Amino acid sequence: MPSPTPLSPALLTDRYELTMLAAALADGTADRDCVFEVFARRLPHGRRYGVLAGTGRFLEALADFRFGDAELAALRAQGIDDPRLLEHLAGFRFTGDVDGYAEGDLYFPGSPVLTVRAPFGQAVLLETLVLSVLNHDSAIAAAGARMVGAACGRPCIEMGSRRTHEEAAVAAARAAALVGFSATSNLAAGARYGIPTTGTSAHAFTLLHDEEAAAFRAQLDTLGVGTTLLVDTYDTEQGIRTAVEVAGPELGAVRLDSGDLAIQATSARELLDSLGATKTRVIVTSDLDEYAIAALAAAPVDGYGVGTSLVTGSGAPTVGMVYKLVERDGVPVAKNSEGKRSVGGRKHAVRRHDAAGTATAEVVSPAPVTAGEHDRQLVVPLVRGGQLVEPRTPAQALTAARELHERVRGTLPQEAWSLSRGEPAIDTVTA
Amino acid sequence: MPSPTPLSPALLTDRYELTMLAAALADGTADRDCVFEVFARRLPHGRRYGVLAGTGRFLEALADFRFGDAELAALRAQGIDDPRLLEHLAGFRFTGDVDGYAEGDLYFPGSPVLTVRAPFGQAVLLETLVLSVLNHDSAIAAAGARMVGAACGRPCIEMGSRRTHEEAAVAAARAAALVGFSATSNLAAGARYGIPTTGTSAHAFTLLHDEEAAAFRAQLDTLGVGTTLLVDTYDTEQGIRTAVEVAGPELGAVRLDSGDLAIQATSARELLDSLGATKTRVIVTSDLDEYAIAALAAAPVDGYGVGTSLVTGSGAPTVGMVYKLVERDGVPVAKNSEGKRSVGGRKHAVRRHDAAGTATAEVVSPAPVTAGEHDRQLVVPLVRGGQLVEPRTPAQALTAARELHERVRGTLPQEAWSLSRGEPAIDTVTA
Repeated sequence: MPSPTPLSPALLTDRYELTMLAAALADGTADRDCVFEVFARRLPHGRRYGVLAGTGRFLEALADFRFGDAELAALRAQGIDDPRLLEHLAGFRFTGDVDGYAEGDLYFPGSPVLTVRAPFGQAVLLETLVLSVLNHDSAIAAAGARMVGAACGRPCIEMGSRRTHEEAAVAAARAAALVGFSATSNLAAGARYGIPTTGTSAHAFTLLHDEEAAAFRAQLDTLGVGTTLLVDTYDTEQGIRTAVEVAGPELGAVRLDSGDLAIQATSARELLDSLGATKTRVIVTSDLDEYAIAALAAAPVDGYGVGTSLVTGSGAPTVGMVYKLVERDGVPVAKNSEGKRSVGGRKHAVRRHDAAGTATAEVVSPAPVTAGEHDRQLVVPLVRGGQLVEPRTPAQALTAARELHERVRGTLPQEAWSLSRGEPAIDTVTA
Repeated sequence: MPSPTPLSPALLTDRYELTMLAAALADGTADRDCVFEVFARRLPHGRRYGVLAGTGRFLEALADFRFGDAELAALRAQGIDDPRLLEHLAGFRFTGDVDGYAEGDLYFPGSPVLTVRAPFGQAVLLETLVLSVLNHDSAIAAAGARMVGAACGRPCIEMGSRRTHEEAAVAAARAAALVGFSATSNLAAGARYGIPTTGTSAHAFTLLHDEEAAAFRAQLDTLGVGTTLLVDTYDTEQGIRTAVEVAGPELGAVRLDSGDLAIQATSARELLDSLGATKTRVIVTSDLDEYAIAALAAAPVDGYGVGTSLVTGSGAPTVGMVYKLVERDGVPVAKNSEGKRSVGGRKHAVRRHDAAGTATAEVVSPAPVTAGEHDRQLVVPLVRGGQLVEPRTPAQALTAARELHERVRGTLPQEAWSLSRGEPAIDTVTA
């Protein structure tokens, strides 16, 4: 059975974009100059800030957004056979402009995180792709940022691939690295984005062997004494004793993956110290989220492996960004649907800061906003006339986003780091 | 900037699988005959049943699970350079056996939904891929099944692509179709799996035009009078009047995407009827989940478009399946970690039913289980010696799963359809 032919990102699209386009081609409105804006009406329940992630992945996919023969055949097979539409799609190249917040920046309700300016016939086609990428990646980044904050400088390792869709796993590893995770278990993320990968062993490796000591010996022989031994397959105390017996006091780390991790980590530390393995680190995994990480702050833990909660956004698996038409031929437009009103017009955005550099407000306005001495213009040009303003490899884009995020997270007011539910850390205001 | 070279599913893998494998190759245990079992220790909080989805996607990916030159180079770039390991990976072909529940079947805590039997050096490599696929797809299928149940026969349309990772969106559309959704908005899902796709227009299409009537006219001209007009961009009542004025009473449907949908649907129905559009259907969208669908049971609604809640698993975005070594060279093995104990040995599984055909128990046992007159053996062979037992196209596999699911959902006891939190609908017992 052959695997399905890989299709262009152009098919990762909702059908209504093509039906609208067909109708707009017929009545001539497809040429109207449009501005679509991506924003979130609110942050996920109780979150204090959002983290924009995915822009780099969107720009990579945009370069491949083409309707080739395979894609056009796939559309015809679904009954999409309007000749004018198919001709338009066959010739589709994005020639418009994209502006947005730099990837890794913070965002708040109403922040215009991405803006697409192009004829309707181009801009309408990007809605699903841009939202899929930004809604997913920003959800993971926001959860990861809370975890990194709760870890207070201890390293966090992303290991959630098995708990999410196999391709989402790669994007999740990228989003985690963006907010400061030190490594990932995911090999494809290492290959695509240059993220450091780590991994040692599972319980299966111990069970594969006749005795725990034999498993440890095999791992040490291959990976060296600096490796991490998983010590809780049978009895944790005995596992640690066996680990140090086999490896000696130079053993790199032990991993605990079950039970009450605060108690286990404390016992493990004491036992390791008593055995002379004073430099052997204690790594904990097993259903950690930002709250569990915070609860372990006083425990002698040297690193956190985080899986399920990270890749599912820790209660907020999507962030509700929308893609709305805000301008048409220079005229601001906005819908008036109940509970979903929008503000028309292309937006400018500035983040205000006090003299100490702490963010105080997100200014979002259809009119240009003047930035004061401590303020920052948030919208930067990303694409001009279909060409990337700053071409970068996927790894370079991630590094830039990671560095920016590191800088801007330091500007958040103290209360933003509270894990409890609350209001956005700064207000969004009109100039 | 070139897009990243597509890599084999073999890199959608956690690094520890390769480190374990390297060590097992070194000490000779990589040849040990192993049985790994996929199961969930429990259902997501309060759920009454699980739906197995993803098996077909896993079997598709297994056929492509190869370490070619690009993958081996990607590993070397990450410091994975053990020559014995790389040689093993270069020659890797899965030659083992896979058994499991048929895709679309129900499952309960401890159900052995998939079993891989192969030398450790093969079976260990599949953990991440199999879990990513099954954990994701089963989460969406379970949420979708609750929605289809709550809709009581009214059609549900999947339209959540924009709220999840762009590739996860395609898998989500597939999982939704498996449990009875009638269509998807996602064009790639239509192309890959033959799922019917639908789509008409967004608010942007109305805003693109100078007047709502012009937008409606353009859509009707292109899509015909059977289309669905989105009527809540400005004022819903006026929108419906305009829609019928432009389309006539033969208009296919109106879509409501905001406000209190029960009130809106009732008003819309009355207004449509008063305008003579008695056959025009009322479709509702906007943050629907199974509870909202159930709450609309008495409202004059003809179809539900479901997005965010479906593709995020409606509160349970992953289902916690694990991949555990249960047998090694014919000997049952099990870890004894606190709170995570396993039962060793390859499992047999039978679902017991009463004379009326209602499921009464899930029997899971290391010993063979006899099936009574009304019972069903649940484990079927999927792969033998690396070859698919029943080769099928992706579309055929989905159709088979959908038909099986339709049959087995009818065997659930009545209380399983309650949306409130509760215990699994049937107990898992040992023979």
